Amino acid sequence: MARINDNFLKLKAGYLFPEIARRTAAFMTAHPDAAVIRMGIGDVTEPLPAAIRQAMHAAVDDLGRHETFHGYGPERGYPWLREAIAANDFQSRGCAIEPDEIFISDGSKCDTANILDILAVGQNRIAVTDPVYPVYVDTNVMAGNTGAADDGGYAGLIYLPATADSGFVPDLPSQPVDVIYLCSPNNPTGAVIPRTALARWVDYAREHDALILYDAAYEAYIRDANLPHSIYEVEGAREVAIEFRSFSKNAGFTGVRCGLTVVPRELKGRAADGTTVDLHSLWNRRQSTKFNGASYVVQRGAAAAYSDEGRTQIRALIDHYMANATLIRATLADLGLTAYGGENAPYVWLQTPNAGGTRLTSWAFFDKLLSETHIVGTPGSGFGAAGEGYFRLSAFNSRDNVEQACDRLRKRLKL
Amino acid sequence: MARINDNFLKLKAGYLFPEIARRTAAFMTAHPDAAVIRMGIGDVTEPLPAAIRQAMHAAVDDLGRHETFHGYGPERGYPWLREAIAANDFQSRGCAIEPDEIFISDGSKCDTANILDILAVGQNRIAVTDPVYPVYVDTNVMAGNTGAADDGGYAGLIYLPATADSGFVPDLPSQPVDVIYLCSPNNPTGAVIPRTALARWVDYAREHDALILYDAAYEAYIRDANLPHSIYEVEGAREVAIEFRSFSKNAGFTGVRCGLTVVPRELKGRAADGTTVDLHSLWNRRQSTKFNGASYVVQRGAAAAYSDEGRTQIRALIDHYMANATLIRATLADLGLTAYGGENAPYVWLQTPNAGGTRLTSWAFFDKLLSETHIVGTPGSGFGAAGEGYFRLSAFNSRDNVEQACDRLRKRLKL
Repeated sequence: MARINDNFLKLKAGYLFPEIARRTAAFMTAHPDAAVIRMGIGDVTEPLPAAIRQAMHAAVDDLGRHETFHGYGPERGYPWLREAIAANDFQSRGCAIEPDEIFISDGSKCDTANILDILAVGQNRIAVTDPVYPVYVDTNVMAGNTGAADDGGYAGLIYLPATADSGFVPDLPSQPVDVIYLCSPNNPTGAVIPRTALARWVDYAREHDALILYDAAYEAYIRDANLPHSIYEVEGAREVAIEFRSFSKNAGFTGVRCGLTVVPRELKGRAADGTTVDLHSLWNRRQSTKFNGASYVVQRGAAAAYSDEGRTQIRALIDHYMANATLIRATLADLGLTAYGGENAPYVWLQTPNAGGTRLTSWAFFDKLLSETHIVGTPGSGFGAAGEGYFRLSAFNSRDNVEQACDRLRKRLKL
Repeated sequence: MARINDNFLKLKAGYLFPEIARRTAAFMTAHPDAAVIRMGIGDVTEPLPAAIRQAMHAAVDDLGRHETFHGYGPERGYPWLREAIAANDFQSRGCAIEPDEIFISDGSKCDTANILDILAVGQNRIAVTDPVYPVYVDTNVMAGNTGAADDGGYAGLIYLPATADSGFVPDLPSQPVDVIYLCSPNNPTGAVIPRTALARWVDYAREHDALILYDAAYEAYIRDANLPHSIYEVEGAREVAIEFRSFSKNAGFTGVRCGLTVVPRELKGRAADGTTVDLHSLWNRRQSTKFNGASYVVQRGAAAAYSDEGRTQIRALIDHYMANATLIRATLADLGLTAYGGENAPYVWLQTPNAGGTRLTSWAFFDKLLSETHIVGTPGSGFGAAGEGYFRLSAFNSRDNVEQACDRLRKRLKL
């Protein structure tokens, strides 16, 4: 019988979201008249911008005519999309990223997962922050880069706590690491790594020959002009960092599917025999062999994000979600709750309140919020041990839902 | 410095298609007026069916309205698409495949590559046919399931020659194997595994506890009513086979991107401790963690392939390509060349002619064909050692190109 990948058996059963679904369903069964507002999921809710829809319609029409039909596209994406990204997302910010360093994909989750294909198994010391986007951890478990699960996480991974004391920006590792996952603006904390801190990370990586996997899926939510949108805004980052981006959270592509990965030409890894190898050519080979390019229709839609209309419409979308975040933050502040994020990110990260002198656990607050206000959020402990005592509220929602939710928080939450 | 996956260094540089491109470019530089006809690539050329475009337009419009907006979809695909596939592609042929055994993806190449994620590395005896679709081989190399490249292929893989004597249907392995890749209708030979031979494979797999990875991407080209479209038409296959399908070659989705994988509930693998594990749950976990669902717009288009209009239009597409194949076969027969395939598959697999008493190598025929007729095809040796002395011509083309190509073959090929 075929032998399975035993590493899958180490995975803790997808605990967080199924447990949220279970508790929510139980509550709704017990209270069939409750109008539950879901603020747990990081999924966009607003219509796809008109400029993007227009481009997708035109692309569908292209496929209906001989002269403009497109079959297999380049595995790494069409040049017109890679050129638009290089110019608008990178070169305009002084980052010397060339179109051929950009690889278009069907989404950032896939890329942050698949990147492990080009790295050795069990040979790299891998660091993640705590709390953390679970995909980074689970894919390392599946690849065989960890030991068994323990209370705090998985043996073999190096967890870097991101706490309130440091503004949820993780400290440099105290032990040598080879690969570091950073996510900024952060899911779940909403914190952004400031330029000076990011420069410290790049310097650390250059000094210790480490590789930074930088997830910038939420960069469009940055409003503070001093905060970096790309790690390549930092000198020397081309030698140490891969950056992941997505059209999901800016252009509303969670159901459309398009992301991209930047692998600079300077990036190197080491082979078993000690020689250095270009990561760009490895990723290119990986994508050419295991991927067949993102949909032509989707790529045309993504390119429209860079038109004048597309930009204006995307800005309006982001303003909408950020106004939601502002409402949520103001409400929490009025209630005397401590909250972070929501200023340069669509997530608000709140400290759970005290009850009888003890801070509520993340799950206790989940139950309290659901039963008192009929609002579903995400317990911070689901993102890692350092998330205990915190709670994530997502600003991805209609204005009406957010206004109702804030009203309920003010009137019904017993503090 | 991060350690790379050294297995990538074992890969022979993507030899086949770059070398074709190199020789073609050199020829065109030397003969700038030559009107080269490309019959080398398995990519569709005809416009996307109207019913599918209509459904995609409607789906784009859905994304423009609050009430019909779709964000993240189910990682395994929308129920309405999985239900249509189960009913039309499987249940209608007596295969008891349920919608929840179907996983929608962005393409069959990805799935046939990613399936290795759920299998152990270096623990399975893996068999491929020769000639073979290169993705099966290259992904096993990348995963670490092989040794170094040698003349005939990669050490550690078990190659099952598919020769003219057996109608290009591979014989059962003479040594025990755990995993077997079968592709029917076959790329590159165009051969289809008949029902009795497929039953022998299923019996073999049941007897030896082997897993069959069955690639049916070209099943829509089968015209002989006695040939099986799905491995699940064979009794017992649910216990031993995963089947891969694609919308690329029937509905013309090579640029649109949609495929699917069937993992029956009965399928088991073995863990290191000897226990058996459901492959369905492993693949579900893999897809949930490393994939975020196929595009909503694309899935709506795929579903339209099952409408009455969609079916009729797809049948016309296939008829078009198959009429091309018939023209090619008739021309080769008139020229006295021996050819296979092209009757239930869009590929014609021809034996290279003799020159001075010796059969031409695949590459010698490539050069001869290009210089005498200005036609580009694919040398059989690029698909494996047993492909030497053969040559693939693709029927994916406009009628005009195929008619011109046949005319040139008749008038200019020196035999």
